[in-house]
Amino acid sequence: MEFKKIDQKDIDYLISVCGEDRVFLGDEINEDFSHDELAGISNYPEVLVEVKETKEVSEIMKYANEKNIPVTPRGQGTGLVGSAVALHGGIMINLSTMNEILELDEENLTLTVEPGVLLMEIAKYVEDHDMLYPPDPGEKSATIGGNINTNAGGMRAVKYGVTRDFVRGLEVVLPNGEVIEVGGKVVKNSSGYSLKDLFVGSEGTLGIVTKAVLRLLPLPKKTISLLIPFPNLETAIETVPKIIKSKTIPTAVEYMVRDVILASEEFLGSKFPDNTSDAYLLLTFDGNSKEEIENVYDKVAHICLDAGALDVLISDTQERQESIWSARGAFLEAIKASTTEMDECDVVVPREKVAEFVKYTDDLQDKFDIKIRSFGHAGDGNLHIYVLKDELSEKEWKEKLDGVFDCMYTKANELGGKVSGEHGIGYAKKKYLEKSLGKEGMNILKNIKKSFDPKGILNPDKVC
Amino acid sequence: MEFKKIDQKDIDYLISVCGEDRVFLGDEINEDFSHDELAGISNYPEVLVEVKETKEVSEIMKYANEKNIPVTPRGQGTGLVGSAVALHGGIMINLSTMNEILELDEENLTLTVEPGVLLMEIAKYVEDHDMLYPPDPGEKSATIGGNINTNAGGMRAVKYGVTRDFVRGLEVVLPNGEVIEVGGKVVKNSSGYSLKDLFVGSEGTLGIVTKAVLRLLPLPKKTISLLIPFPNLETAIETVPKIIKSKTIPTAVEYMVRDVILASEEFLGSKFPDNTSDAYLLLTFDGNSKEEIENVYDKVAHICLDAGALDVLISDTQERQESIWSARGAFLEAIKASTTEMDECDVVVPREKVAEFVKYTDDLQDKFDIKIRSFGHAGDGNLHIYVLKDELSEKEWKEKLDGVFDCMYTKANELGGKVSGEHGIGYAKKKYLEKSLGKEGMNILKNIKKSFDPKGILNPDKVC
Repeated sequence: MEFKKIDQKDIDYLISVCGEDRVFLGDEINEDFSHDELAGISNYPEVLVEVKETKEVSEIMKYANEKNIPVTPRGQGTGLVGSAVALHGGIMINLSTMNEILELDEENLTLTVEPGVLLMEIAKYVEDHDMLYPPDPGEKSATIGGNINTNAGGMRAVKYGVTRDFVRGLEVVLPNGEVIEVGGKVVKNSSGYSLKDLFVGSEGTLGIVTKAVLRLLPLPKKTISLLIPFPNLETAIETVPKIIKSKTIPTAVEYMVRDVILASEEFLGSKFPDNTSDAYLLLTFDGNSKEEIENVYDKVAHICLDAGALDVLISDTQERQESIWSARGAFLEAIKASTTEMDECDVVVPREKVAEFVKYTDDLQDKFDIKIRSFGHAGDGNLHIYVLKDELSEKEWKEKLDGVFDCMYTKANELGGKVSGEHGIGYAKKKYLEKSLGKEGMNILKNIKKSFDPKGILNPDKVC
Repeated sequence: MEFKKIDQKDIDYLISVCGEDRVFLGDEINEDFSHDELAGISNYPEVLVEVKETKEVSEIMKYANEKNIPVTPRGQGTGLVGSAVALHGGIMINLSTMNEILELDEENLTLTVEPGVLLMEIAKYVEDHDMLYPPDPGEKSATIGGNINTNAGGMRAVKYGVTRDFVRGLEVVLPNGEVIEVGGKVVKNSSGYSLKDLFVGSEGTLGIVTKAVLRLLPLPKKTISLLIPFPNLETAIETVPKIIKSKTIPTAVEYMVRDVILASEEFLGSKFPDNTSDAYLLLTFDGNSKEEIENVYDKVAHICLDAGALDVLISDTQERQESIWSARGAFLEAIKASTTEMDECDVVVPREKVAEFVKYTDDLQDKFDIKIRSFGHAGDGNLHIYVLKDELSEKEWKEKLDGVFDCMYTKANELGGKVSGEHGIGYAKKKYLEKSLGKEGMNILKNIKKSFDPKGILNPDKVC
């Protein structure tokens, strides 16, 4: 790929679109914009532009397409695979400044938002109106635009599904600057290929999302969490398929081990309700009455105890639940703070294979003499596995990481799993996607990319 | 498009793949295979092939692609827009003979099936195992392959969503004969563009589905239906947004008028529970206990009575419910039997626009002096509107139909609606899709089609 370098004329054009205050160059660009949350891949854009409306995004794309300048769209930069890093320099469009909640439609149960609205803002806003936006990724300071672009899943996917299932419509600026709307407030749609579903999960490579219509649900009146200690991780995880098989659907089923809980306690400076056992399942149930939920969790509690659980700790006050779930939300940050550098594997496997996969990654610690920590969504098979650098030299780290990742992705593939459950492919996981999809599959992705972006200027070198 | 005509060498090849018994020519091809359910568009394939396994489909596609022969995949032919009609002759692949239920996986809550399994077979099979496959289109003798290809929605979309939401993975034969798997048993997936979601709803134009992994739910223990008479249709339909706004989510909300009920009684030869009112809402609620459901339907019943309902008839026995819903399932057939020919409009509009749209179509009867009947999914905004030929001459019929359709699709567009809620575009609705998506949108669809099928041999002239 041969892209044009930014010159004064380009800067002048961008200033003519957005004004001087929202165009940043050189030292004016904060270091944060050179990498994402994991910081493994870094490069600065040549120019950073804050946008306020769709028209600006459209004009920038039209110009960049004409001039052959690469463009990287970016939200809060909380990604983990390098999708929001300007690998080829060029223009970075910061969409986190397009952050208005535009409309709550109570008759259609939809919320229309700009892409820069944060997950935590959406959660609060809709809950204040007695509604629920079910997708619930751990990183609450991510933008909804970012979540749409990775098809983030989060904790409540067991019961409710993932971001894709709650995006009804999108306004998208295409690489050539044209603005299109796909989907809408409608509940059903069979009107040609589902472009909406192509944009969801495309990591900013097919178009730039400038507006989203989200589907909401009525807020369940009652929520309860169970923290269930187990003597070891294997017993904990092997219990999950039994819960699913019992035909009860919890809202969330997370697993966690003591090491990660201790790291989280240290990071947050507050105690977890219990840290005496080696492994835990954390379950949530929601519904519209206490009785409705009790029937279900009572059944699940018995399944867990029969399967070897040491106890069942019930959290039915909001305060207690928030303390548990905020600890869970801090796991990634806590592990990150405990080491010098880390990288992660976000595979998803069929639910009944989780125990086998976690056991396998555990064994890799000895094989490669490296520290590996994991937690994840036991209820939907999506694991977050972190490989820690600690005191390894740069060379040792790269070699061992490569070896560990090769093993993990090969194993996941064997088990019918996929490269990424919710963090995406970006730049970091391309080689594993190629292995998983094969040549035929990758060719289709490349052809689709070309259909949208023949010049390859939008977020180049990502996904495919 | 210039396609090769079938010759003896091609026939010999097909016989070498499938055997003589499953290759049909000329008079051996039943008239049914020249059209679909609405029969408005008809043409015979040059050769009809029954397939039994993926390998056969793959070999046929490889050959057809090499020789430039058009291929039309077909299930039970219950479509309404001509998708399964061999417009250019060539080979028709009958997939309804690939009809095995392959696996019920209770730990992952999935059902793996071949494309020719009928909806009614799936419903019965999973219910016998205490599970639910939620998509519930009226036409129970459609194949699951056909449902996946139109992204059929059905009655329970209000609560559960559409076919797309319940397809976890697909095995697909590409136009060049390669076999790929997309998705799988995994609950989350962010591994490159969602090809699974592209194939769903693509009406057999991008690939041929040869296997599907469906997502199941535990069967709700209790279901109840309410039949609610209203003095007129407008009052009935205007009640629906009030129900949604009350934050209760029924499983299904259908509307119907007396004329259609009478036609259905005549068609089935059995009585509907009530036919004394002009219009009705039919609602279903499901849940795991009587109390859980009662709380909800009690609230909804009061909303309806406050909004002008004449009564609330509760059906809580299975027998009574089946009699109502089987009448509802026969509406299309009943209307069809009441006239000489008909065509249908399957638009979907935002839920709060349904009343306005139905009123508008009602008024078109006078404007065009033609009979129009409708029923549909008031709860999800998807309408099924039938324009009846009755005693009109062929010329009058075509002219009036064109005029009526132009009005309807323009109006739907104005209201933020889409061309098709669940029946697809096929051949019949292409011109309305073009109007709705615009040039830019259609170009993207065409480019995607080319990515999969550069020679354009798979189901040519459909969708785009």
